[in-house]
Amino acid sequence: MAEVRSLENRVMTAVDGGVTAPGGFTAGAVHCGIKPSPTALDLAVLAAEAPVPAAALFTTNLAQAAPVLVSREHLARSHGQVRAIVVNSGCANACTGAQGLADAERMARETAAALGCASDEVLVASTGVIGVALRMDRVVSGIRAAVARLSPQAGAEAARAIMTTDPFPKDRAVAVETRRGRFVVGGMAKGSGMIEPNMATMIGFLTTDAAVPPALLRRALELSARDTFNAITVDGECSTNDSLFALASGASGVVIDEETYPALVDALLAVSRELAVAIVRGGEGATKVIAVTVTGARTVDDARQVARTIANSPLVKTAVHGADPNWGRIVAAAGRSGVAFDINRLTVHVGGTLLFEHGLPHDDAAAVAAEHLQGKNIQVDVNLGAGGGVSATIWTCDLSAEYVRINGEYRT
Amino acid sequence: MAEVRSLENRVMTAVDGGVTAPGGFTAGAVHCGIKPSPTALDLAVLAAEAPVPAAALFTTNLAQAAPVLVSREHLARSHGQVRAIVVNSGCANACTGAQGLADAERMARETAAALGCASDEVLVASTGVIGVALRMDRVVSGIRAAVARLSPQAGAEAARAIMTTDPFPKDRAVAVETRRGRFVVGGMAKGSGMIEPNMATMIGFLTTDAAVPPALLRRALELSARDTFNAITVDGECSTNDSLFALASGASGVVIDEETYPALVDALLAVSRELAVAIVRGGEGATKVIAVTVTGARTVDDARQVARTIANSPLVKTAVHGADPNWGRIVAAAGRSGVAFDINRLTVHVGGTLLFEHGLPHDDAAAVAAEHLQGKNIQVDVNLGAGGGVSATIWTCDLSAEYVRINGEYRT
Repeated sequence: MAEVRSLENRVMTAVDGGVTAPGGFTAGAVHCGIKPSPTALDLAVLAAEAPVPAAALFTTNLAQAAPVLVSREHLARSHGQVRAIVVNSGCANACTGAQGLADAERMARETAAALGCASDEVLVASTGVIGVALRMDRVVSGIRAAVARLSPQAGAEAARAIMTTDPFPKDRAVAVETRRGRFVVGGMAKGSGMIEPNMATMIGFLTTDAAVPPALLRRALELSARDTFNAITVDGECSTNDSLFALASGASGVVIDEETYPALVDALLAVSRELAVAIVRGGEGATKVIAVTVTGARTVDDARQVARTIANSPLVKTAVHGADPNWGRIVAAAGRSGVAFDINRLTVHVGGTLLFEHGLPHDDAAAVAAEHLQGKNIQVDVNLGAGGGVSATIWTCDLSAEYVRINGEYRT
Repeated sequence: MAEVRSLENRVMTAVDGGVTAPGGFTAGAVHCGIKPSPTALDLAVLAAEAPVPAAALFTTNLAQAAPVLVSREHLARSHGQVRAIVVNSGCANACTGAQGLADAERMARETAAALGCASDEVLVASTGVIGVALRMDRVVSGIRAAVARLSPQAGAEAARAIMTTDPFPKDRAVAVETRRGRFVVGGMAKGSGMIEPNMATMIGFLTTDAAVPPALLRRALELSARDTFNAITVDGECSTNDSLFALASGASGVVIDEETYPALVDALLAVSRELAVAIVRGGEGATKVIAVTVTGARTVDDARQVARTIANSPLVKTAVHGADPNWGRIVAAAGRSGVAFDINRLTVHVGGTLLFEHGLPHDDAAAVAAEHLQGKNIQVDVNLGAGGGVSATIWTCDLSAEYVRINGEYRT
């Protein structure tokens, strides 16, 4: 088993099992006929043995899909005590009006009936084509079959069932030893393959067998998402269905309090970072992962804004795709980010090679940087020279002709 | 001669001659060896017979090229009284440090010497590769040759001399009849072909033989640029060199005051809109021009922000490229624009065909919209249903694999 080193140098151990790696969780995944492929898994239920503390973050898009609206309401009504999450792929149940809301409610109700809990204790997620109604006969029989199959070994299957155009499933888990005992954090995500015919949807699920009160779980989720799921971008788009869920079963007996909270955040960060970078690596048409790190900013928000502007620049992304050490595009993107800095104090490194400082290029180093850009993992470092040790990293992928091909093909 | 109809339905007449169409202006264009091609024009001087009122708008990028810094200072020192503008293509004189500033100053000084005016009365513009110094021996002999060739017939040549990767030159002029006499507005621009190895530069020049005080000229320039040069986007990038200049010779004898000001703004708008849309049409890899019009907004700023978010969405741009009537991507882009509206009151038309209303798609109309999307001029209309008659239009182009090819090719 691999060692996973946290930011604070705490040692965690990678374990198998994804969302069912932590004790107290089961999953069931089935093919029920939402996806056209006759065998592709397209529905999963993730369940705890009883209602457990839950937290969630949802898309900031004004156009929110029915499952987002329903999950938000159920989370409030159940006071953050959730028994299960039901999720389907192949249809996003977005832009589906009153029928869509009724269908999302029914998904929760059917799952609750099969599990023997209250409907409000079930959250709902959907991903896939938008503007098309769910075929509820198939969904309902799928829910019943998935609940019948619930097993503590089905984490990997669930990770496959939430895929749309993702090139590979994404699940991770880590075990953490603390003075108070061992707990596990698991997770799975589906990514930013654009969904025919529509937009990128990010859906993530995190589980832990630590005992965490809902308010603390939400705080830890927000904190860990900020530098992971919220620090990735494929094309700056934000979908109607983006959701991130966390459930804490408490089965390990380890209680999260002031002493153990940092270990929980670390474990959430480690799992989330791996899932988030995997989403970028699976971005449509992506051939490289680019980490843009901005240091020397006055505030973390400044650092993030500059990093995000560079990471979303089509010119930077195409230059990286072509292995072109184009410092000019990086400087220009920083310059239009809206963050104030002195261009003469700015430095740009690509793969550790200095390409720009004192307002002037180092084109003699271009060949070394170009070699780094031939690889799969690209590091861009920008120091704004405007402050102390504040920094932020945004992960993105390159922009390829394949992205245009995938997203420019006519739907019918 | 074609009739050009202004927004206010004022009739103007299209005339030939670009920036030298208005009386009182001459231009000279030469090949002096900045561009590698042995014949390509790469330097131009645009001159008035004496210092005349001038105004300019410059890039908001923090990384500003030397000619931008020098022009800004000269405009202030000369109190907006300018004799000439010298412009070269093939080298942007950006990220060139103290040497770059000295070179830009010298371009002004050499032009002034050849014309017999003060150095502060000359503005400077450069476009092309960044991070590379100008070969000043060539530039200086180019300036002398260009001034020696100054002619009132050289507008079209000047428009060619400012091109970089632009697929075609862009110059326009209109004549306006008023009760107080006839005046002419001319213009030329270079566009958003990305400059090897760097970014898009927009440079525009407007001339008129109306008599306009500098402050009024600046106001008219800002007003007309807002809905034209500032309402286009190829990829959301903003360069180190973007500049827009206006000069007013007064040679027509028509004085711009309260009565004639609307006619001046109209003429500037007409010329600027044609040049701006031509820049989009010449965008790298562009195969279609897309006009995104947002109506029913609470404020013009809201309308602009939504239109700009849609126009810069890679998913919308690739969908249009593929002739896919993908209302979902348009709705999602509007939803993440940061402007508040009720999704159930939003409508989306593509080519006049209703595709989305009451939160639901009209997929039955997709085939008709797809046919419109096969054309070269695409109209996207979004009504936010949030207010009255406030609207804004942003022009952009589609995103093609060719854009990626052009910008992803390795420099060396």
